[in-house]
Amino acid sequence: MRRELAVVLVSGGIDSCLTAAIANHTCNPAFLHLNYGQKTEQREKKAFRDIAEYYKVKKRLEVDMRHFSVIGGSSLTDEDIPVAEANLKNEDIPRSYVPFRNANILAIATSWAEVIRATKIYIGAVEEDSSGYPDCRESFFKSFNLVIKEGTKPETDIRIITPLIHMSKKQIVEKSYELNAPVHLTWSCYQNEKKACGICDSCALRLRGFQQAGIKDPIPYVKQPSYL
Amino acid sequence: MRRELAVVLVSGGIDSCLTAAIANHTCNPAFLHLNYGQKTEQREKKAFRDIAEYYKVKKRLEVDMRHFSVIGGSSLTDEDIPVAEANLKNEDIPRSYVPFRNANILAIATSWAEVIRATKIYIGAVEEDSSGYPDCRESFFKSFNLVIKEGTKPETDIRIITPLIHMSKKQIVEKSYELNAPVHLTWSCYQNEKKACGICDSCALRLRGFQQAGIKDPIPYVKQPSYL
Repeated sequence: MRRELAVVLVSGGIDSCLTAAIANHTCNPAFLHLNYGQKTEQREKKAFRDIAEYYKVKKRLEVDMRHFSVIGGSSLTDEDIPVAEANLKNEDIPRSYVPFRNANILAIATSWAEVIRATKIYIGAVEEDSSGYPDCRESFFKSFNLVIKEGTKPETDIRIITPLIHMSKKQIVEKSYELNAPVHLTWSCYQNEKKACGICDSCALRLRGFQQAGIKDPIPYVKQPSYL
Repeated sequence: MRRELAVVLVSGGIDSCLTAAIANHTCNPAFLHLNYGQKTEQREKKAFRDIAEYYKVKKRLEVDMRHFSVIGGSSLTDEDIPVAEANLKNEDIPRSYVPFRNANILAIATSWAEVIRATKIYIGAVEEDSSGYPDCRESFFKSFNLVIKEGTKPETDIRIITPLIHMSKKQIVEKSYELNAPVHLTWSCYQNEKKACGICDSCALRLRGFQQAGIKDPIPYVKQPSYL
C-alpha cells in the first residue's frame, strides 16, 4: 500500500527531529525547512539537510521568509534585541517570541501540501515546555485546522499533526533515543553556530531535558548553565 | 481622540483601493503590500506606492514572499502555467488560484500588526465576485480571527475587517467614486504591466463592474473582451 504523503516541518532542533522520526514511521515524509532570518540560520539549515539525508527524504523544500527580519519584534531575528539568558521560571512571553510565527509557517506548509497533495502536516510543537509562546498551544493548532478546511479547495484534506504537543523535554529525549532519531545531527541553540551557548532559552530547555532523562547530550556546548 | 492603528492590505487593485478609502475614514492606516512573485509585481508595487502617497500614509511595509514562486501551482507565479483567458461562467477554481494565499498574507499582516500594535487588519476580499477562491469566503476570515485570538499574546486584540466581502464589482466601482478613491492609480491586470490585457479573469471582472456601474474605467487597456 502506498503511504500517505506528509509535510514535516523540520527546523533542525531535537523536537522536529523526533517529529520526523514519528512521521517517517507511518507516512511518506516531505521535509520543509524555513529560514526566517534567525541568527543561527546556516547551522539550522545544515541540521535540516543532515536529518533529511539520514531519513533519505527526496521531497524537500527550503523556503526563505525574509519578511520576519523586516517585521522585527523578536530577539531571534532583530539585531537590536539581544538573545536573553534563560530564565525558565519566568512566566512572561520571552523576547525570542517571533510574533505569530507558527501561523506563518503553517500557512506555507499548507500551500505546499496543497500543491504536492500531502494530507498531513507534522509539526513538533510542545505546549507545556514551549517558553509560553501562544502559537504553540494545542488550541491554536485546532483552530488552524479549521482555517485550512475553510481556506483550501473542497477536495483538499489536510490536517495538522502535533505528536509532541503534550510531551516534556525529558520525554522527547527518551522517545528520540527509543526511535533511533539522529539526535547528534540536531541543533537547538538560538545564539551560536559552532558550539551551543548553553545559556539561551532553547539550550537550557534542551539540557534540562537530557539531564532529567539521564542521557548525555551529544552536541558540543560552550558551557552548561550552573543552575542545571 | 487618537485614531486606532489599522493594517490595510493594499495590493494596488481597485478592491484594495476602496478598502484603503474605507479604512482611512475611521482609522490611522498602515499600508502593507506583498510581492509574491506574481507576473505584474512591479506594476502593482507602483500602484501601492501611488495610493499610499494619495492618502499620505507614513507607516508602510513592502514584503517579499518569494516562496510562492518556489511552491508553484498557480498561473500567477508559475512561469509554466499560462494565465487563462477569463470565463466568468466557469464554476471551477481557476488556474490563477495561489494555494492558501490569503492565509499566508493574513499571517504576515497579523505578525506586523502585533509588532506595531495595530488592532485591525483590513482586507478587500470579495466573496461573491472572487473567482471562487476558497480563501476569499467570509467563513474563512471568521475562522482566521479565531486563529489570531489563539496564536497571539493575551493582551493582543487584532480583528480582520472585510468591508467588501458581500459587495459586487459594480458596487465596488460605485462606492469607490462615492468616496473619491484614486481609482486611476490602481492596477488589476494579472498579465500586463503597461496596458491592461482586458482578457484575464481580473480584467474581465473589473471591466464588467465598470460597465454595470455605467462608468468608464480610467486605466488603459489593450482590448476589451467582446462578450462584455
